[in-house]
Amino acid sequence: MGFSYLTNVPLEQARAEYLTKLLEKGFSAENETVPVSGACGRITSRAVYAKSNAPHYAASAMDGIAIAARDSFGATETTPVTLPPDRFTQVDTGDPVPAGCDAVIMAEDLVFSEDGAVTLHTSAAPWQHIRQIGEDICAGEMILPSFTEVTPAAIGALIAGGVTELEVIRRPLVGIIPTGDEIVPPCADPKPGDILEFNSSIFRAMLTGHGAEAKTYPVVPDRFDEICAMLEKAADECDMVIINAGSSAGRDDYSAEAVKKTGEVLFHGIAIKPGKPAILGCRGEKPILGVPGYPVSGMIVIEELLYPLLDAWYGRQSDTGTRTSAVLSRPVVSGLKYREFVRVRMGYVGDKLVASPLPRGSGVVSSFMKADGILEVPQNMEGFSAGEAVRVRLLGSKKKLKNTLVVIGSHDPLLDELADLLHRGDRSIFLSSSHVGSMGGIMAIRRGEAHAAGIHLLDTETGEYNRSYLKKYFPQGGVRLVRCVGRLQGLMLQKDNPLGIRCFADIAREGVRYVNRQKGSGTRILADHLCRKEGVNPASVYGYDREETTHNAVAVQIAENSADAGMGIYSAAKLYGLDFLPVCTEEYDLLIPETVWNSSLVRQLLRTLKSDAFRERIEAMGGYTLDRPGELIDVF
Amino acid sequence: MGFSYLTNVPLEQARAEYLTKLLEKGFSAENETVPVSGACGRITSRAVYAKSNAPHYAASAMDGIAIAARDSFGATETTPVTLPPDRFTQVDTGDPVPAGCDAVIMAEDLVFSEDGAVTLHTSAAPWQHIRQIGEDICAGEMILPSFTEVTPAAIGALIAGGVTELEVIRRPLVGIIPTGDEIVPPCADPKPGDILEFNSSIFRAMLTGHGAEAKTYPVVPDRFDEICAMLEKAADECDMVIINAGSSAGRDDYSAEAVKKTGEVLFHGIAIKPGKPAILGCRGEKPILGVPGYPVSGMIVIEELLYPLLDAWYGRQSDTGTRTSAVLSRPVVSGLKYREFVRVRMGYVGDKLVASPLPRGSGVVSSFMKADGILEVPQNMEGFSAGEAVRVRLLGSKKKLKNTLVVIGSHDPLLDELADLLHRGDRSIFLSSSHVGSMGGIMAIRRGEAHAAGIHLLDTETGEYNRSYLKKYFPQGGVRLVRCVGRLQGLMLQKDNPLGIRCFADIAREGVRYVNRQKGSGTRILADHLCRKEGVNPASVYGYDREETTHNAVAVQIAENSADAGMGIYSAAKLYGLDFLPVCTEEYDLLIPETVWNSSLVRQLLRTLKSDAFRERIEAMGGYTLDRPGELIDVF
Repeated sequence: MGFSYLTNVPLEQARAEYLTKLLEKGFSAENETVPVSGACGRITSRAVYAKSNAPHYAASAMDGIAIAARDSFGATETTPVTLPPDRFTQVDTGDPVPAGCDAVIMAEDLVFSEDGAVTLHTSAAPWQHIRQIGEDICAGEMILPSFTEVTPAAIGALIAGGVTELEVIRRPLVGIIPTGDEIVPPCADPKPGDILEFNSSIFRAMLTGHGAEAKTYPVVPDRFDEICAMLEKAADECDMVIINAGSSAGRDDYSAEAVKKTGEVLFHGIAIKPGKPAILGCRGEKPILGVPGYPVSGMIVIEELLYPLLDAWYGRQSDTGTRTSAVLSRPVVSGLKYREFVRVRMGYVGDKLVASPLPRGSGVVSSFMKADGILEVPQNMEGFSAGEAVRVRLLGSKKKLKNTLVVIGSHDPLLDELADLLHRGDRSIFLSSSHVGSMGGIMAIRRGEAHAAGIHLLDTETGEYNRSYLKKYFPQGGVRLVRCVGRLQGLMLQKDNPLGIRCFADIAREGVRYVNRQKGSGTRILADHLCRKEGVNPASVYGYDREETTHNAVAVQIAENSADAGMGIYSAAKLYGLDFLPVCTEEYDLLIPETVWNSSLVRQLLRTLKSDAFRERIEAMGGYTLDRPGELIDVF
Repeated sequence: MGFSYLTNVPLEQARAEYLTKLLEKGFSAENETVPVSGACGRITSRAVYAKSNAPHYAASAMDGIAIAARDSFGATETTPVTLPPDRFTQVDTGDPVPAGCDAVIMAEDLVFSEDGAVTLHTSAAPWQHIRQIGEDICAGEMILPSFTEVTPAAIGALIAGGVTELEVIRRPLVGIIPTGDEIVPPCADPKPGDILEFNSSIFRAMLTGHGAEAKTYPVVPDRFDEICAMLEKAADECDMVIINAGSSAGRDDYSAEAVKKTGEVLFHGIAIKPGKPAILGCRGEKPILGVPGYPVSGMIVIEELLYPLLDAWYGRQSDTGTRTSAVLSRPVVSGLKYREFVRVRMGYVGDKLVASPLPRGSGVVSSFMKADGILEVPQNMEGFSAGEAVRVRLLGSKKKLKNTLVVIGSHDPLLDELADLLHRGDRSIFLSSSHVGSMGGIMAIRRGEAHAAGIHLLDTETGEYNRSYLKKYFPQGGVRLVRCVGRLQGLMLQKDNPLGIRCFADIAREGVRYVNRQKGSGTRILADHLCRKEGVNPASVYGYDREETTHNAVAVQIAENSADAGMGIYSAAKLYGLDFLPVCTEEYDLLIPETVWNSSLVRQLLRTLKSDAFRERIEAMGGYTLDRPGELIDVF
């Protein structure tokens, strides 16, 4: 099967033609009547008019007395007027003004005599201190026009105007049908091949945030008739339907057949990445979307193809988001055939807004979570170079980006703990870390794209860490080196060391599966150095080219019996219960440009490094030594 | 009683000291554990770590076959390698890679022979087309730091990481206690003196929108012991309590006494307007806010004094909103004693962002609803002049303001219908109208503060409408006059005309209560003209100084027997079932500056005026004649 029959329709065309066809078939919003008190955030479907006046009676606007104004005419300081008790009525604010009265005099201006009469020293203007009927709202007046969001104040105005219920656009109900034999409910211990059913939870949250209601149907196994039956049921019960295909290409075609049998398929295959195998179909006027199984693909398809349907339902303009210019930290290469959506992390370093591409796999939902923006690479464009100014669609606020400490360099799980501590200490501050290895960190600092870089680079000639690299790459200075931690590096091995590995050179033994770190990482440089030192030929090591970008990822391969050995830090071995063969203690320091040294972000970072909370967390992780973290190291 | 014992503490001071004292007493958030699938929008209370790897097994990233890579080594176009069926396994995307296999070859690259063997023409790189375990998330890694909002993608990442529930900050529960003998449930036919209980619905909507949950208690009558008992109950059951006093000063003091008896009062009387009589109290660590009964006062107090408590609960920075510079269209005079919050309508006319103050009464909830921004007049400042550049806090988006047609001038209910039709026709377009009378409209156009002004100004010498005024006020031209409607003006009278009023001059009769329009309005000019023509001395007319700013407001006074007669248009008389003594048909035209003539907003306005929908609505209202609406009138 494969994707051979898929079309490759440009996104705009598919979106526009799909909507046009749906509208032709009668796709449109329905309305419902709801009580005013629960209508906040809803959208009126027609103009709402007041049923009564607010206030609905002439009301005193003060505490005091109500009188007929003409009774006070002529009163002055020298010629006061005295009113007997039957010529006035005491009123509190909000009380009705009695018939025959047309003015209120404030309590502060009154002098009462013992017989209960009141003496006035100024004459009252007719209607003074009286809230006229309808001052706020007149019966019959339009309170809200059509297609207007009901705000808290509007709720007050509606109730004040005697309106107790109103007609609003009904929230569209979107049915979500998860399919696939291998799909299992969320749990902590799935079996190999099981795929946790989390897409419907993501989709539900997205839909709810976009004004829809979601109904998730039970998982349907990969049986054509059952899928068709569920599609029919959902299309009967809902306003729109999402069928979430498994991740296999074969299954996508299967969904398309089912949509075709239930209704019709308008498009199958859109020129976007991720999201290409999307199906745009319908049953009568009801949209049926086939959404790919990879979560990121699914999210992109919902954003780009389902949100416009929700916008059309509500008759609102699509929110195209805020776009901003940013400098790309690494190149982005993209195919000519698709428009590609690349998630990026962002941050201001000085005045420069830097965008770093995140891993692009369509299964990598964590990169969607970490994204601060989306970079679109248009169809027929090969991508962008590093350093190029690109337009990015922001997912958060610029304010957050200005308060984000950008850390690019060597990976250590302590960076996550540091991020948490920083944010706990000052909730306006965020730390975003990218793992590109120590050398990548040095380059990012040279290009002015990071506030800090974690580095642990061994000078194999001197045995010294980091200093000689700084002298080489920053001959003019301009950077400072800050103590962070000493950490124990070594060979991580499966629990109880079943292969009996005793030294680094054993990684070249027959039957040992090694897993490596990426080139440019300090740990890779260490491994290469050990190979030379121990006379190991890397080409003879199985898996020496198998690269992971974090200590944890290396440890996971070993813990899950996908590899037998890999270099990493003790805390990672400890986290996954691995055996550990110590090799050395290295200095993991933070490199910081002088240009940002005095920024509040960096100052807060240094304070956190020196804190007891940091020490406690680091000690709990194991394998670290702390020697005055946050202090400057003399380099130059 | 009165307000004599109230303090007048500056807002910032009250806010800061109140929060400090609450924190000293132990005010702080509580946490709760919730299922991940329902956690969207919640805030983590601590860092969340993955429990399992995602993917949790090495998975094929393609449809094809899984092999041991070494079996393919050496394969080229000229020296292909053939694998028998027992040396490979067919896999679909997402399938586990079988033990012993470390590479996947795409289906497209395979050639099968009849005996089921497969021939390869290139060698496979180890681990190609395989999603490594933990590619997305490694067990033990931090997925979300503390105090972070859970997004749809985060829900996916959490479930993928084996997390099924997590700890989030519990939404604070705010108890709302409405009080007052005169408070009645929302209805369409309240009795005089009844006050509809809509504050709790407004407050509930505000609180919900700000991350809290609200619990509204039954209305408590004005009995001290009952109020104290309800305060205790609410403080026991909730995290914060709002006691919503009636609008009378006396009752505010009553609430303060009750808060004092239940706990303590920290402040009573804040230097803000509206909102001065607010009470900041507590019972132990639980805040109790006394919120004034006038809805606008209550909303300001909740925004300025309760929102900061919710922000403190969540540990988030207060959202101080977007501020922008605008030109004030009318002066704002404010007292020195308070910081005043003035609601303004806003709109761009050309490049000029104009802010027009809305009615400031604290009972006028409709002005809060109509507001596009809030202008703060600081304490110790007398206000701002017309034309002054002021800083305004935006309540909506600038984009909306740029799509808002600003109409300032004479009132006619047809403007609301026009607003509705315009917005129905193009939901990105809004119309905002302010009623300042025909002369006010001419002045607004002269100052460049409106796109259009409704005017109906009678030249009493020629009997002609509008033209001579334009020649006088726009001697250089620069404006165009557009036909809108002819409308029937006359004397509106109580139903069945109980006083037997037969002509305009009868308004001066003893016992007739007249209600007038404001000076500068076309209708007032007409009334003044009729007085001169009919020999009526305005000083002898009861209520001639009683001014309302709309036709509807005049009609309401008559319909509610608060007046007997007033000038107005037929449609208003019809709406309220009044008798009507026709006086003349006048031309109600729209004055439009040439500078905005070609704007899309004005073009859409003209199209709407010419539409059948406009004709239908106008005909339904009654008393209008339509003669080519939307066409230009030759003036100069």
